[in-house]
Amino acid sequence: MSTLSAETSESFDRREFDRLFEEVKNWGRWGSEDARGALNHLTPARVAAAAAGVREGRTVSLAHDLDTVAGPDNHKPALHYMSQCSDIDDIEPRVNMDFLGMDFHGKSITHLDALCHCNYQGKLFNGVSSAEAVTSGGSAFGSVMSASSGIIGRGVLLDVPRSRGVEWLDPGTAVHPEELQRVAAEEGVQLSQGDIVLVRTGARRRRAALGPWDPSNFSAGLFPTVMRWLHQHEIAVLGGDADSDARPSPVDGVTSPIHALALTAMGLHLVDNVNLEPLAATCAELNRWEFLCVLAPLRVPGGTGSPLNPIAIF
Amino acid sequence: MSTLSAETSESFDRREFDRLFEEVKNWGRWGSEDARGALNHLTPARVAAAAAGVREGRTVSLAHDLDTVAGPDNHKPALHYMSQCSDIDDIEPRVNMDFLGMDFHGKSITHLDALCHCNYQGKLFNGVSSAEAVTSGGSAFGSVMSASSGIIGRGVLLDVPRSRGVEWLDPGTAVHPEELQRVAAEEGVQLSQGDIVLVRTGARRRRAALGPWDPSNFSAGLFPTVMRWLHQHEIAVLGGDADSDARPSPVDGVTSPIHALALTAMGLHLVDNVNLEPLAATCAELNRWEFLCVLAPLRVPGGTGSPLNPIAIF
Amino acid sequence: MSTLSAETSESFDRREFDRLFEEVKNWGRWGSEDARGALNHLTPARVAAAAAGVREGRTVSLAHDLDTVAGPDNHKPALHYMSQCSDIDDIEPRVNMDFLGMDFHGKSITHLDALCHCNYQGKLFNGVSSAEAVTSGGSAFGSVMSASSGIIGRGVLLDVPRSRGVEWLDPGTAVHPEELQRVAAEEGVQLSQGDIVLVRTGARRRRAALGPWDPSNFSAGLFPTVMRWLHQHEIAVLGGDADSDARPSPVDGVTSPIHALALTAMGLHLVDNVNLEPLAATCAELNRWEFLCVLAPLRVPGGTGSPLNPIAIF
Amino acid sequence: MSTLSAETSESFDRREFDRLFEEVKNWGRWGSEDARGALNHLTPARVAAAAAGVREGRTVSLAHDLDTVAGPDNHKPALHYMSQCSDIDDIEPRVNMDFLGMDFHGKSITHLDALCHCNYQGKLFNGVSSAEAVTSGGSAFGSVMSASSGIIGRGVLLDVPRSRGVEWLDPGTAVHPEELQRVAAEEGVQLSQGDIVLVRTGARRRRAALGPWDPSNFSAGLFPTVMRWLHQHEIAVLGGDADSDARPSPVDGVTSPIHALALTAMGLHLVDNVNLEPLAATCAELNRWEFLCVLAPLRVPGGTGSPLNPIAIF
Repeated sequence: MSTLSAETSESFDRREFDRLFEEVKNWGRWGSEDARGALNHLTPARVAAAAAGVREGRTVSLAHDLDTVAGPDNHKPALHYMSQCSDIDDIEPRVNMDFLGMDFHGKSITHLDALCHCNYQGKLFNGVSSAEAVTSGGSAFGSVMSASSGIIGRGVLLDVPRSRGVEWLDPGTAVHPEELQRVAAEEGVQLSQGDIVLVRTGARRRRAALGPWDPSNFSAGLFPTVMRWLHQHEIAVLGGDADSDARPSPVDGVTSPIHALALTAMGLHLVDNVNLEPLAATCAELNRWEFLCVLAPLRVPGGTGSPLNPIAIF
Repeated sequence: MSTLSAETSESFDRREFDRLFEEVKNWGRWGSEDARGALNHLTPARVAAAAAGVREGRTVSLAHDLDTVAGPDNHKPALHYMSQCSDIDDIEPRVNMDFLGMDFHGKSITHLDALCHCNYQGKLFNGVSSAEAVTSGGSAFGSVMSASSGIIGRGVLLDVPRSRGVEWLDPGTAVHPEELQRVAAEEGVQLSQGDIVLVRTGARRRRAALGPWDPSNFSAGLFPTVMRWLHQHEIAVLGGDADSDARPSPVDGVTSPIHALALTAMGLHLVDNVNLEPLAATCAELNRWEFLCVLAPLRVPGGTGSPLNPIAIF
Repeated sequence: MSTLSAETSESFDRREFDRLFEEVKNWGRWGSEDARGALNHLTPARVAAAAAGVREGRTVSLAHDLDTVAGPDNHKPALHYMSQCSDIDDIEPRVNMDFLGMDFHGKSITHLDALCHCNYQGKLFNGVSSAEAVTSGGSAFGSVMSASSGIIGRGVLLDVPRSRGVEWLDPGTAVHPEELQRVAAEEGVQLSQGDIVLVRTGARRRRAALGPWDPSNFSAGLFPTVMRWLHQHEIAVLGGDADSDARPSPVDGVTSPIHALALTAMGLHLVDNVNLEPLAATCAELNRWEFLCVLAPLRVPGGTGSPLNPIAIF
Repeated sequence: MSTLSAETSESFDRREFDRLFEEVKNWGRWGSEDARGALNHLTPARVAAAAAGVREGRTVSLAHDLDTVAGPDNHKPALHYMSQCSDIDDIEPRVNMDFLGMDFHGKSITHLDALCHCNYQGKLFNGVSSAEAVTSGGSAFGSVMSASSGIIGRGVLLDVPRSRGVEWLDPGTAVHPEELQRVAAEEGVQLSQGDIVLVRTGARRRRAALGPWDPSNFSAGLFPTVMRWLHQHEIAVLGGDADSDARPSPVDGVTSPIHALALTAMGLHLVDNVNLEPLAATCAELNRWEFLCVLAPLRVPGGTGSPLNPIAIF
């Protein structure tokens, strides 16, 4: 705990943050109209290579069950209603149907953040004005439609608690790039262009053991400098078992520095609330921390993201 | 048109239907508790083989955009509301968020039918009583959770209008197994165990050209005997650009015979309202009608299916 | 029909409209902070007088049934799902519960328009900037909370088709103030301060006879000069069996002139899609076109209106 | 606290409960088809008499603001989304619109319980089988449509904490009929046929002072024998600032005895989560605990109740 406290007490100056923001900024890199950002790193060749890595044909879901019960980490419970049971139609065959509703951003539902989800100082990725692009009808820039053909690539799990020999990282912990580099090395993987990188903090294992808490105030995540490291490796997507941000935030005045650096500066899509427990177990069992990873967001014109069931295929 | 009329006038006796139902029935085949049905055909080895077939790394989405506008084929328009724009929070970074809602069964949204979606004479797949399994809280049997680890396998497109040299099949057309066999042969593919078979009727091309109509009453689809053929080939999933059923139904007193035969008798998951137009174009361009196909339904406990963005990877 | 065509061909110049807007404008009349507008005409004394007018104790609902089926005049069908039936809880007593959802503005649901529902040239009632007051979180000015203590007053039905001796006014008809004055005189009522005025065009009777159509393009309603007359009489609320606006609009470039004049200029709340058929029958039967009228909108902070079941008490 | 503990420790035998259920049962009283139950007590003459009691014309809302934030007493937060702001349409006038959604039963939203909301031993009011009447499409018996013409009558507030000289009754307290009779006498009111009786426990005042808690487990309410007293007085509706039931329940094996006795046995509609604080203040100020009370539920075919803004008019 003392080590963790040391980590969490570490802070990152707002000017340092702004410098880092400029450093990892991909604005204009793929043209002024580009709305795919770091997905451009995931070339067809990378997709094909990722598929070629499949061995056993074993599949693992990286999503949580949709949760309709309110709780400390589920302020906007999902809606699930049977819209019709077989008790009302008088035909053959009879059908059962249901309605789903969700305000999916938050700490419960596994979801993809589209680039338009987050702006810093009024600007979305590529310098687009959020106020101009986003109306009550949705976003004209960087919506989830930028990923509508699916994101298929090599997934890499960086399992930090496993490396530390602990069950989970305490909420508040911010992981540094040096540690992630070491974890990767221990796992025998090397980040490369177009990777879908998933960082495990063990948040859900802690939840299973100790019960839910509010990750808006207190969560394990990444220290801002991790984004420099990921930027250098030209990854395509970043995901985590929480929302990648450590809280309390290491950056004064920036509540979600990872979101700002990833979505806004780098154009790097995020996957939040990924269920990494079964994946971690499978990786450990197979002694392999890379896999084919599939993200298939719903096609929502103007949407800020999508609920998701990411699948890992070994 | 005269040929098509001949097809549509053809009917299938209710007793013939019931005999066919018995013939293709997989109840008990994988144990009395089984709720995966024909997904059992999709073994890890088949998954790995499908992944190994990827060449170019090109991905194609098989979903339609979520449609929030009511119409003849969209009686239950999807809900999409911005739940928060950057105009109300006073923090950095600012966020844009949205709410999605959908009663996804119907003729608009691309979706997976779980086995519990449909019963015949009160029985779900494996003989489970629908009235007992399905409550207002969802289904205790054959929910979409049976496919929660994703469905990854070899996809095969059977492009009927292409084979016929027409733009689309007229609504009301019921395609016979002999024709599908011929289409497959022309495409150079052979159905095999665990396949995800997608049959194109050109419904959406017709819609683009002539405008929407109500497919509940009038749609191109499959003649019931197609299910015998698919049963013999032990496919894992069946999809179509409408909902696989021809309407008016060829079977008197059974409005959706394909649904009953697939979901209820065979335990064969269906994918409805698949967008096959871009896929057909890609297959024709690459002269290849097989691909890696990924279905990643949302994890909805008790759910009768899920909206979906199926992805084809070449 | 020729008479009606004459009426509908009549148009109202945009400059005339703007002059009328200025003429009936109540901005500042009740202070610069006021958000109740013409509700200020409905003083406690008027409320008490209206209640004193009750004779028989007979009540009539002025709302339509919530309609969950999409149609030409119901683009956003209401959602109604059983959220729990008695089939899942194992306690005594058992309960049945349901979920309601509605995007209530439109042509189907009986609802109150709050003053913030409508702006003209960017300004809400009292000159408030719509862009500043209304965010994705709701409206900070003129929300339905301005009427949250209910609107109780004397209701007056002006039954135009009855006066004309027709079943309904043809869509496109715009009623003039002279006619409404004559209708009132025939009914033996005189408009007075604080009245809740309901104008019947017979739209729903036409719908029952001929089927639904899209009132967005074609509806009977009021000619703009009616608002001068209503302004002079200092009424508190205006309602109609459609949405009070005639369409095609008599004013070039202003699609809903009555909405702009009422909500924005006068601060006059509107009630749309009122079911006036049972009310008209009761009025005729009792030979009395005034009654106690009760509007009890839901308390929605920031809301732009509310679904409603207005009640007339005779 | 010791007094309250004495009260709460008091229990009511299940057999006593069943005897009381039989005693207050109104099944068949208004015919075997009747679905209005105790609303039959509210005759037109009673409506007129209630209206005649209005003096000052002062109106008070008895509803809480719709609450979109989850909490201990708000497990199913209401949905409120702007469906359109003036930022997307390019016409005059421009409009702001919103979507409302609610699963209104529970402890947050002020709502009416329809008779079909609750069954005891499988039977709804009048002996109707809940399993037969209520399907996934709604209830064919005792829906909120039974009250669709509105409930207008004399309201009576029984302010228990005021009588006791306390701020609120502690959760767990069950009020007995003798006390309510004494409260009424102190207030100078006598219950009579057709009354809408509202019992104040001060729950919301406690909430304002101490914060929310979960009333499902712990709430002040009525002791079962109160229903005998209300039955004798032939009241039409019962409401409370919680849900009328004391919890923990005084009846072993019956979690909501008041609901069962009222809705199921007596056919007495309930209003839950009524905001009685402003009403209590007004009553005390005017030294009058009776008023015209208006309940105008939404017209939801098959609905189990309705969100509501009850209005008191003095």
